Amino acid sequence: MLPDAFCRRLSLLLGPDRFFTDPATCYVYGYDNSRNHCVPEAVAFPLSTEEVQAIVLACNEFKVPLTPRGRATGTAGGSVPEQGGLALSLERMRRIIAVDPANRAMVVEPGVVNQEVQDAARPHGFFWPPDPSSAAYCSVGGNLATCAGGPHAVKYGVTRDHVLGLKAITGKGDIIKTGAYTTKAVVGYDLTRLIIGSEGTLAVITEATLKLTPLPEAVAGITAHYRDIESCAHAITRIMAQPHIPSALEFLDRGALDLIRAHYPDLVPVDTQAMLMIEVDGGEAEIEASQRAVMQACPDPALIQVRPVADQKSLWAARKALSPLLRDIAPRKINEDVVVPVSRLPELLTGVTALATRYQIANVNFGHAGNGNIHVNLLVDPDRGDELQRAEACLSEVFDLVIRLNGTLSGEHGVGMEKRPFVGREIDATTMALMREVKRVFDPNAILNPGKLFPDR
Amino acid sequence: MLPDAFCRRLSLLLGPDRFFTDPATCYVYGYDNSRNHCVPEAVAFPLSTEEVQAIVLACNEFKVPLTPRGRATGTAGGSVPEQGGLALSLERMRRIIAVDPANRAMVVEPGVVNQEVQDAARPHGFFWPPDPSSAAYCSVGGNLATCAGGPHAVKYGVTRDHVLGLKAITGKGDIIKTGAYTTKAVVGYDLTRLIIGSEGTLAVITEATLKLTPLPEAVAGITAHYRDIESCAHAITRIMAQPHIPSALEFLDRGALDLIRAHYPDLVPVDTQAMLMIEVDGGEAEIEASQRAVMQACPDPALIQVRPVADQKSLWAARKALSPLLRDIAPRKINEDVVVPVSRLPELLTGVTALATRYQIANVNFGHAGNGNIHVNLLVDPDRGDELQRAEACLSEVFDLVIRLNGTLSGEHGVGMEKRPFVGREIDATTMALMREVKRVFDPNAILNPGKLFPDR
Repeated sequence: MLPDAFCRRLSLLLGPDRFFTDPATCYVYGYDNSRNHCVPEAVAFPLSTEEVQAIVLACNEFKVPLTPRGRATGTAGGSVPEQGGLALSLERMRRIIAVDPANRAMVVEPGVVNQEVQDAARPHGFFWPPDPSSAAYCSVGGNLATCAGGPHAVKYGVTRDHVLGLKAITGKGDIIKTGAYTTKAVVGYDLTRLIIGSEGTLAVITEATLKLTPLPEAVAGITAHYRDIESCAHAITRIMAQPHIPSALEFLDRGALDLIRAHYPDLVPVDTQAMLMIEVDGGEAEIEASQRAVMQACPDPALIQVRPVADQKSLWAARKALSPLLRDIAPRKINEDVVVPVSRLPELLTGVTALATRYQIANVNFGHAGNGNIHVNLLVDPDRGDELQRAEACLSEVFDLVIRLNGTLSGEHGVGMEKRPFVGREIDATTMALMREVKRVFDPNAILNPGKLFPDR
Repeated sequence: MLPDAFCRRLSLLLGPDRFFTDPATCYVYGYDNSRNHCVPEAVAFPLSTEEVQAIVLACNEFKVPLTPRGRATGTAGGSVPEQGGLALSLERMRRIIAVDPANRAMVVEPGVVNQEVQDAARPHGFFWPPDPSSAAYCSVGGNLATCAGGPHAVKYGVTRDHVLGLKAITGKGDIIKTGAYTTKAVVGYDLTRLIIGSEGTLAVITEATLKLTPLPEAVAGITAHYRDIESCAHAITRIMAQPHIPSALEFLDRGALDLIRAHYPDLVPVDTQAMLMIEVDGGEAEIEASQRAVMQACPDPALIQVRPVADQKSLWAARKALSPLLRDIAPRKINEDVVVPVSRLPELLTGVTALATRYQIANVNFGHAGNGNIHVNLLVDPDRGDELQRAEACLSEVFDLVIRLNGTLSGEHGVGMEKRPFVGREIDATTMALMREVKRVFDPNAILNPGKLFPDR
């Protein structure tokens, strides 16, 4: 139960329309797309940096856990208020403070939706590169908290590469300003990137200066089909080593292709065991040459076909067909986003297949092959015997495999609650202890998203 | 004086060829390109991570200040052992541990020279984008410590954008491993970028995994001459808003042009008050279109001429002519690297000219206009009356102007000793206090490069 004095303070600060303790409101602010559910005791909707500061200070005073959230589209449980307390929803802080095409910058509040940033940038000939699959409804604040990626990260990089500076409230309630309004700036420590990807455990971001990128003039596509995964992986390496870096380089494995073939026999050749969907973008004059250069990196004795694709719809047809089919197999999808060096992709994919076979778990893999970032999907029916336990044992071995291959447990989803038990396999104890000390500097009372990101001790 | 036991410990650890206390050796390891000079009491040359750790632990035990250094090409005094103690030269840790073109990565020790990285990457079709003017002889460790930039940062970004992970020894002597071996990775806090640009105040980097970039197929140039600085600045904004981002966009102001004209009358038209030197790179098929697109962004009533340039030598002729001429004017050059948003460049440049006139200081400005990163040069003869004092007063007002224009005091040189007194004008007291606390977490005994980066209190 929250202290009465705390509730009175926030009620007075925010009024009846922006502070709630009723069970119905609290219920819906208790989960995110990880499907974890922990009901907070109150929900607050601040409108300004100063209100966020007042709330954080109150949480410190009354030792109330505070879990910041955007649109709760994250899949790792980062915005689930695991220890109860206050859910701090930033969804009403959605002003676009400045659009500044002359300096290729935009200043936004954290509740602005990714798509709204794109809509505001486009008339000026710009876009903001982070493009998670939830871009139509996820918030910029969430993108910053998780250092979101997406398919275009292979050419454009991830969220941390597209932010100039932040305004934020630390866990102890200080207003800080990080970074600068310019693309080059080296005065002081890089707190901007320390906060980006910290999943709301260090500070609550209340304003961000985004770096915009000019829209490409033209886009084109290529599909390539391979008889085996090794040949496909070698092609990925060759594609990434030539100067026409694709703007997307996505991959479907045999499991995914079998599923698609079973429902749409004409969409994928019968002997394709690995498929690439490749997008190139650039100047009008260059686009055909880029398409050609990528196609020239594709050949291999195990190549079945490589084809230019005229439109985006045809390029992504197989991928779009896949998502609804996954749900048909099993009600629960364990969707991981492991990363390995591109040259280790064959070992990862054959290894995952072997593990899934051994544990008798349906398995489908696809994702951002150009970065080595593969979405490993274990498809589970929790009501079917010990299937969930087998899937969890399988997942644990998948993570071990990823670490052996010099990879990382998460490329874009983050740690949240879901990957917390495994973090210690990737980050050594000394480095982890240092991260805990950094956390204490920002948040000495462990108010902000407590328990997240770090493994239990 | 260093404690005898400390010297014996390091002597035993490193042997007579890698630990020195004689005045001659100490003397030369006391300065960098800032021309500050503070003689250390000893110089050590470690060869491994473990040796660096042992040295840092000894410095903690005996409370000896430790100043890490690469090739000492920095211009802000970051590697000057201001408080004496030990100069830790990493110049002998120069192994290239792995060149991995399949994963577009290279693993190096900090003493490897920037040019050696380029030489090792080139046969595989790659380069490493950071290109400070000292690239032929500066070390990667120094590039990391300062988050070095260079002319190509306008398209490719700065050092922080091209590093995947680090091995480092914190100020308290712990070995940490940051980042990953993959381009996407979001597990744990981004300590990689916290350490990059921290000027050796948090940790000594002993190994870095660099991200490589494919070499462009073709390069072309453009020069543009303007009758006034405002028109030139508007052209810069237009050039940066179109999708063919130049690979370099360099600028010379009237002071620089007058100097060049006085010695080489044919190199620059008589009425040019601002000149752009623009490089584009990309695919063979695109390069002419890119050159055309940039040229189309140049026109203005005050444009005198815009011309394609066939070769690199012609493109940079005016800039190359400038450097030796600067030395003829005055023996001492105060060379700052301030940054303002591109749209504020006219205000910066007219403001700096007005200040230099008021203080009667010779002034020449040039630099990386595409980033708004201008090298403001105040040319001083310290033996001439109160000229140095006037220059310092002028500089202080230049920094105030930069802050008023929403800029930053340093785009690539760093703070070191030189900009330390001014940092408080850019970073507010609360954020600065947080940075000091972060420093204490890494370096509780204030062993590492003590006194640097932060203003005196």
